[in-house]
Amino acid sequence: MKYYVGIDLGGTNIVAGVVDGNYNIIAKASTKTNCPRPDREIAADMARMAEEAVKNAGLDMGDIEWIGIGSPGIANSSTGVLEYSNNLGFRDTPLVDYIKEFIGRDDTPVFIENDANAAAYGEYVAGAAKGARNAVCITLGTGVGSGIVIDGKIYSGSNFAGAEIGHTVIEVGGAQCSCGRKGCFEAYSSATGLIRMTKEAIELHPDSAMAGMAKERGKVTARTSFDCMRAGDKYAKDVVDKYIKYLAAGVTNVINIFQPDILCIGGGVCNEGDPLLLPMKKIVAEEVYTRDSDKNCEIVIAKLGNDAGIIGAAFLGKANS
Amino acid sequence: MKYYVGIDLGGTNIVAGVVDGNYNIIAKASTKTNCPRPDREIAADMARMAEEAVKNAGLDMGDIEWIGIGSPGIANSSTGVLEYSNNLGFRDTPLVDYIKEFIGRDDTPVFIENDANAAAYGEYVAGAAKGARNAVCITLGTGVGSGIVIDGKIYSGSNFAGAEIGHTVIEVGGAQCSCGRKGCFEAYSSATGLIRMTKEAIELHPDSAMAGMAKERGKVTARTSFDCMRAGDKYAKDVVDKYIKYLAAGVTNVINIFQPDILCIGGGVCNEGDPLLLPMKKIVAEEVYTRDSDKNCEIVIAKLGNDAGIIGAAFLGKANS
Repeated sequence: MKYYVGIDLGGTNIVAGVVDGNYNIIAKASTKTNCPRPDREIAADMARMAEEAVKNAGLDMGDIEWIGIGSPGIANSSTGVLEYSNNLGFRDTPLVDYIKEFIGRDDTPVFIENDANAAAYGEYVAGAAKGARNAVCITLGTGVGSGIVIDGKIYSGSNFAGAEIGHTVIEVGGAQCSCGRKGCFEAYSSATGLIRMTKEAIELHPDSAMAGMAKERGKVTARTSFDCMRAGDKYAKDVVDKYIKYLAAGVTNVINIFQPDILCIGGGVCNEGDPLLLPMKKIVAEEVYTRDSDKNCEIVIAKLGNDAGIIGAAFLGKANS
Repeated sequence: MKYYVGIDLGGTNIVAGVVDGNYNIIAKASTKTNCPRPDREIAADMARMAEEAVKNAGLDMGDIEWIGIGSPGIANSSTGVLEYSNNLGFRDTPLVDYIKEFIGRDDTPVFIENDANAAAYGEYVAGAAKGARNAVCITLGTGVGSGIVIDGKIYSGSNFAGAEIGHTVIEVGGAQCSCGRKGCFEAYSSATGLIRMTKEAIELHPDSAMAGMAKERGKVTARTSFDCMRAGDKYAKDVVDKYIKYLAAGVTNVINIFQPDILCIGGGVCNEGDPLLLPMKKIVAEEVYTRDSDKNCEIVIAKLGNDAGIIGAAFLGKANS
């Protein structure tokens, strides 16, 4: 059996995992990222977590084929430099070189990739997009993350900053997005977007079930509208319908551009299951350019959750082969 | 010198060209498509035009490395079957086999590709996108055509129906598109979209210069608003500004997804030059996700015009190598 290390570098946690040739995570180690602090210090902790995970797996670093890193920001997979990360406060950090230095083994290759791309690759090699030739993965979380895999290769554009599907405008002049644009897919289809729509509806309908639930729970969450819809609230159903309308628009856009075998959707909002997915798929089927074709993209739910990033990172050596 | 034949199959004309190894068209032959008629008849005329072009070039079919076809619709480049074309009324036409049969030379390979993809590939190998690793080409015509070239390969998705960037919604619930969706990029950024916006403005401002020009010329064209803007009409400038706003939104979307080295824009509307391009590029530069990066996509104007399709088709053997 061959073994690989994947490191998921986040703004909050550093998680390293040892993954076996069957795509199973057999050991993990994690620590806080503690941003902001110097990039070398964070790299030292990443190397330490890799070593700890390897030890936890009962292995030696010599047993590891390669190490892969998933990082927020613009990760240049050719040079190994994390060119820019707003979350981490890094600019032109030679992260691959740092990890090599701290691990101290010249014969262990180290790879780096953007975290959303790494997670998409994880679903592609071992999760819901397994078996696809071309796949696009979208994660509905605080933002809308996305990754594109074409013919087994991660596509990140000529400057390694592409695949920002969340930052495509689906309503010119629409809701403010964190990226500075107005009307981005992310501004509507993220959990944050759903919460915004729910709050707007509560303001318009202060006597609605949503308003009551928000008061009772002390906050509005991405589940408020779905929960109240299930309890029969008409205004909540309007919010859910609106959310699904925008999500379907963005998903249809992605299919019309990429026509992948599989479009994989993940993130907390997907836990809503069929009440979200069935009406969304229905709109996509009606709207997609190939609606009359018998070969259409399959829409599936992500399988690996937070492990996608570690598994994807662990197999970056394959993506780069 | 090596020679190649490219055939541009359109709803109106069939044009075949002989292209030399320097990407120059050295001879052409053309005939009317005369749709609708049986696909075999049209294929026979395509083969005849190829032979005529070769003869016009002073060559023999034995001098030709391969033949490439650019066709409207879903062209399966693996099987050589034109699976569907609304324009031509074809379904599952084995176009590559037909051409091989009519040409009667087993040793001359024949390739097929969607026409917009072939035109994009033409700009990629010999035109405005030459030298790029990744390029996206957009044509602002009756519709908004587009083609994607990644690492020298044409990207058309898993079912050969992708790259329909014109059919991505940029305004949910917006203007009706020919594809059935509402608010597509094409509905705003095609010449047809510009004419619609101009007509809407004329209706609102029947005393405007645009209304006068429309009456004088007997029709509204894609140039009416630009011409009247240059003559100082405020309402015309509003139309142009609106057109540019939507075009910039769609172009920024493409860059945020693909981050190509080069985004190439063609089609008649581009003849407006700087009054169109400079404000559009300014908005894109302000809005693009990598606005703070020093590596940004270059936006250029297509060079090859209608020849792009023939040249791209002629080099399909290279795209498929």
